[in-house]
Amino acid sequence: MLSKNKIKYLQSLKLKKFRQKYNNFLAEGEKIVAEILSQDKIKLEALFATSEWIAENPTFQGNFNKRLTIVTEKELAKISQLKTPNKVLAVVERPAPSVDSHRLSNGLSLYLDGIRDPGNMGTILRIADWFGLDYLFTSLDAADIYHPKVIQSSMGAFLRVPSARLEFSALREMVPQLKTYGMVLEGESLFKQSLDSRGIIVIGNESKGISPEIKKQIDRAISIPPGPGGNAESLNAAVATGIVCAIFRN
Amino acid sequence: MLSKNKIKYLQSLKLKKFRQKYNNFLAEGEKIVAEILSQDKIKLEALFATSEWIAENPTFQGNFNKRLTIVTEKELAKISQLKTPNKVLAVVERPAPSVDSHRLSNGLSLYLDGIRDPGNMGTILRIADWFGLDYLFTSLDAADIYHPKVIQSSMGAFLRVPSARLEFSALREMVPQLKTYGMVLEGESLFKQSLDSRGIIVIGNESKGISPEIKKQIDRAISIPPGPGGNAESLNAAVATGIVCAIFRN
Repeated sequence: MLSKNKIKYLQSLKLKKFRQKYNNFLAEGEKIVAEILSQDKIKLEALFATSEWIAENPTFQGNFNKRLTIVTEKELAKISQLKTPNKVLAVVERPAPSVDSHRLSNGLSLYLDGIRDPGNMGTILRIADWFGLDYLFTSLDAADIYHPKVIQSSMGAFLRVPSARLEFSALREMVPQLKTYGMVLEGESLFKQSLDSRGIIVIGNESKGISPEIKKQIDRAISIPPGPGGNAESLNAAVATGIVCAIFRN
Repeated sequence: MLSKNKIKYLQSLKLKKFRQKYNNFLAEGEKIVAEILSQDKIKLEALFATSEWIAENPTFQGNFNKRLTIVTEKELAKISQLKTPNKVLAVVERPAPSVDSHRLSNGLSLYLDGIRDPGNMGTILRIADWFGLDYLFTSLDAADIYHPKVIQSSMGAFLRVPSARLEFSALREMVPQLKTYGMVLEGESLFKQSLDSRGIIVIGNESKGISPEIKKQIDRAISIPPGPGGNAESLNAAVATGIVCAIFRN
């Protein structure tokens, strides 16, 4: 049985300010919750599940039990962010961001400068996961990685890709020699350069591109050339990110 | 002033069966409508615009006038498929699909086998436009190219990329020697093959991949290798398409 206050609290987590205030976020559905429960490093705060889910997950017990609330389908619908609620909803602690300067300077990372669409953000998390990137950083004005739509569309990639929300200048301070690539429309073709296997790739906002201050800090401007007879109208930001990461990794 | 029947008809166009029955589709918003009006090959059937739009588009006249209905914002909201209706809505005739076997055999095309998400379909249209592909084909069970969400998310690419909905076997009959590449998880790395600049690339359904019958007709199975330490969980279908097209074109 869910109290009115509990429902109000859970519903508030769809907003960034409450996710930040309470330092947690929601993850829903059987697949994502199963992944969360299988990971040691993720701190589960509470779990709301239907009796059907409980019956199907008999091994779920022990330490988690006191954090479990059994809910009816109707209650689940009230607290869910999904159109079609799926048996179980977890409240998870936001992992404390930590950046290791050695890994940063020796690895390949992404910096999302103002990416606003949660769907794009989730898709980019999957790309970072696929190509084994070291970090996914987001600017302060970018969509929140813990937005319910990002969590759902990332297919669990948010559990595997280390991420942090910080100013670009903080990264340069940490690793001053960090080689910075920026995706711009007017850059040099990605296919005509020798690319380092280390560094950071900056992806700009869906319509405005990379912000002027960050543009100044870019070492190499790169672009994806349109094909013969193609229209360089616009490429989706996540698609462009996927192409860049594929080329850097191969 | 819109009659009840007219409203009902316009609302029905959100469903594929009515778009097919009436042989037309909706396109909304200032930018897309401006592109439609600037093209000769697109047949505009009707235009519904607010008086604000009319005032801002004084050159819009002549032949189109008799197809124009001035609507209030309230009426526009009733017939619009958008959350935030944007001044103008066009009813456009579905172009008759035509496939030139010479262009097909000498060009590079995509075949979407069961892509279901209209957002993915719109993004893939933009990719095909960017890389100047010759055709975008869709299987009979794929999302409709003229679905309102595809039209809106394709950013006008649907006007530039020739498309047709047909069985894969029809293409092989037209051009028996058509070189067929298929994106599969267990294929050979895209980066370790010499790729032809001509042929057709098959992209499978978001979760099930390429259907068994089409798989049999593939000459070369290709895949995108995950990066070191990466998780080959899933790459979004549109992102995978973008990577493949970028490699084929460069």
